[in-house]
Amino acid sequence: MSVFLPRGRHLLADFHGVAAGRLGDAVAIEALLRAAADAAGATPVAGHFHPFGPGLGVTGVLLLKESHISIHTWPEHGFAAVDVFMCGAARPDKAVEAISAALAAGSVALREIARG
Amino acid sequence: MSVFLPRGRHLLADFHGVAAGRLGDAVAIEALLRAAADAAGATPVAGHFHPFGPGLGVTGVLLLKESHISIHTWPEHGFAAVDVFMCGAARPDKAVEAISAALAAGSVALREIARG
Repeated sequence: MSVFLPRGRHLLADFHGVAAGRLGDAVAIEALLRAAADAAGATPVAGHFHPFGPGLGVTGVLLLKESHISIHTWPEHGFAAVDVFMCGAARPDKAVEAISAALAAGSVALREIARG
Repeated sequence: MSVFLPRGRHLLADFHGVAAGRLGDAVAIEALLRAAADAAGATPVAGHFHPFGPGLGVTGVLLLKESHISIHTWPEHGFAAVDVFMCGAARPDKAVEAISAALAAGSVALREIARG
């Protein structure tokens, strides 16, 4: 890293009760995470999104100057595990809000861990 | 995802007091995370490691069938933030052990969060 102090906020969000159709499209999920980074005021440096195949989930990450946003999805369980870890002035809560709005989960378990 | 149930163990490890020379080499850090995945019995599907430049840190991730290992380093602060998130039978604690041994930190703050 460099520009930012290592102090950061790490939000861990477990989304249950998500429609399977929202969890299997790697292209749509990458677009969602990029929109979430933008909402947070964070800057992507690389992204990789791996689809496990038709009807299956996606595992992906957006690496940021400020750390990362990751997602792992299980359409067959209506579940997604999202991490938003950001240092500096970026707003990880705004990223989680954007992802929450798009996934429209039945329930969300959100935890925040201070890092650094 | 698919093969694995969404239930997982997520270990968050903050390493302080690490020699700067261990935190700036993206190639060495990728090799370390791949060795850690191997120690855990996990299977990488993709990796990306971004160096911020000479004397600066590295941000990187190894995407796994079982979720991910990420690292963000600040050589100038002797600090690295590592996440090991694994589902299925993989052993995230073994990955953290391998990374701890290589970083030889002055202190480690380790937290475990159940996911899924």
